[in-house]
Amino acid sequence: MSDSSRLHGLQNTFLLFGVSQFLGLCYSSPRKPVQDNDSYTALREARSMAFSPAIIVYRLPWTWKCSKLLMKSIHAGLNTVAAILAIISLVAVFDFHNAKKIPNMYSLHSWVGLTAVILYILQLLLGFFVFLLPWAPLSLRALLMPIHVYSGLFIFGTVIATVLMGLTEKLIFALKSPSYSSLPPEGVFTNTLGLLILVFGALIFWIVTRPQWKRPKEPNSVLLQPNGGAPEGVESSMAMNFGNVDKSDSELNNEAAARKRNITLDEAGQRSTM
Amino acid sequence: MSDSSRLHGLQNTFLLFGVSQFLGLCYSSPRKPVQDNDSYTALREARSMAFSPAIIVYRLPWTWKCSKLLMKSIHAGLNTVAAILAIISLVAVFDFHNAKKIPNMYSLHSWVGLTAVILYILQLLLGFFVFLLPWAPLSLRALLMPIHVYSGLFIFGTVIATVLMGLTEKLIFALKSPSYSSLPPEGVFTNTLGLLILVFGALIFWIVTRPQWKRPKEPNSVLLQPNGGAPEGVESSMAMNFGNVDKSDSELNNEAAARKRNITLDEAGQRSTM
Repeated sequence: MSDSSRLHGLQNTFLLFGVSQFLGLCYSSPRKPVQDNDSYTALREARSMAFSPAIIVYRLPWTWKCSKLLMKSIHAGLNTVAAILAIISLVAVFDFHNAKKIPNMYSLHSWVGLTAVILYILQLLLGFFVFLLPWAPLSLRALLMPIHVYSGLFIFGTVIATVLMGLTEKLIFALKSPSYSSLPPEGVFTNTLGLLILVFGALIFWIVTRPQWKRPKEPNSVLLQPNGGAPEGVESSMAMNFGNVDKSDSELNNEAAARKRNITLDEAGQRSTM
Repeated sequence: MSDSSRLHGLQNTFLLFGVSQFLGLCYSSPRKPVQDNDSYTALREARSMAFSPAIIVYRLPWTWKCSKLLMKSIHAGLNTVAAILAIISLVAVFDFHNAKKIPNMYSLHSWVGLTAVILYILQLLLGFFVFLLPWAPLSLRALLMPIHVYSGLFIFGTVIATVLMGLTEKLIFALKSPSYSSLPPEGVFTNTLGLLILVFGALIFWIVTRPQWKRPKEPNSVLLQPNGGAPEGVESSMAMNFGNVDKSDSELNNEAAARKRNITLDEAGQRSTM
């Protein structure tokens, strides 16, 4: 239980970090492009998605007592705000480029970044219409859930890569005297930031792929709503198991017990886990 | 079955592409540094890992009839050759930098890339001593398998990010007249290459996380070798399920049937899937 508590503390720390990053974005004034800094804006834009806690909200054990509809709404809400911020930041970048006569959309960073934003918006629309609204049939949800989960993590990884490319560009363009190749303190600082962003991505990826942190399904929802369609109804499985946990440890706590229930229901294809 | 065949064709194509990339690396002459190009070398080095087919060898249904020991040996062998090529390429980069008086290890690309190579070598040693050699106890294998699987994919993703950063650097440094910002044909070509590398990464990630392409466990190995320790003995599970497949389709073919057997064995914690 001590280990478990520490791990939950880790998850909460990341949630809080994500929220603070997320709220920090509200200080921006994207319609004053010339006072802005394009790489900083691009970084902020990427952050607005990468550091959004939306990706791990289902994986916080203290939220498991909250209703599925509430958690879905939080997941959708956080992603919606992040997407709006991403779009605002993109507009700010274009404004800044135009004001400074810098060409738009020439770099690999911009190509990959725009691809990520477009996929993110498509993912948001898919999630909203298929998983949040109550009308999508169960079969469609079952078909699209693995794609939704896969896409979410792929977009997250792409955003991390975009941030690292953005940092690389910024370092080369901004550090002239002393040059980046002489590795001045700013270079060390920003390289370290890049490594920390990679570590952050790795930890989020770890949290999202541990089976023992998977939200247990609500037993009632299967029994009471066998036809699906209700907001908290039966959905496809989202088993994100990258490996079995160490049985000897995990079977001692409640999450593992919940997971064992999940496996049984999973075989019936009736697990509600979005 | 037609869908299934097409998907297997896709996997085979990627295997062949990976092998050809992998073999293509043998043309390099890394000890002639000044004739070499550092970014090309770095790209090649990254390729030697990223495009290695080692990561998907267990996921090719036509290999499921091969023995587990053979597949493990292929997995280990491909990774060993890729690691050796990565080290040779790294040495070539340092040689080239020294010959051209270019500082080493200043860029974020180099920091992330070296981190990836170090993690890759550690991963290789872990896999060799714990999973390939027959002496590691079952409990240790069970404990480390989720970490091995997670690390493998994390390193793969990091390598993709390193390649994209390397391309970004190369484009900025090499395209001067016309400049990269005017998006000359070389820029379009290399940006497109970057996007294709991302798509390649996405497809490998898809193949590796589909439960229906997971190698079925050998039933005999559980029954005949209950104490573990043999090269093909009982090991921890490596359930890499990112979502359930569409049941209506998958239950029609043999892979899904194999997967269903796996789920049952998985619950007993006795699945041999490395």
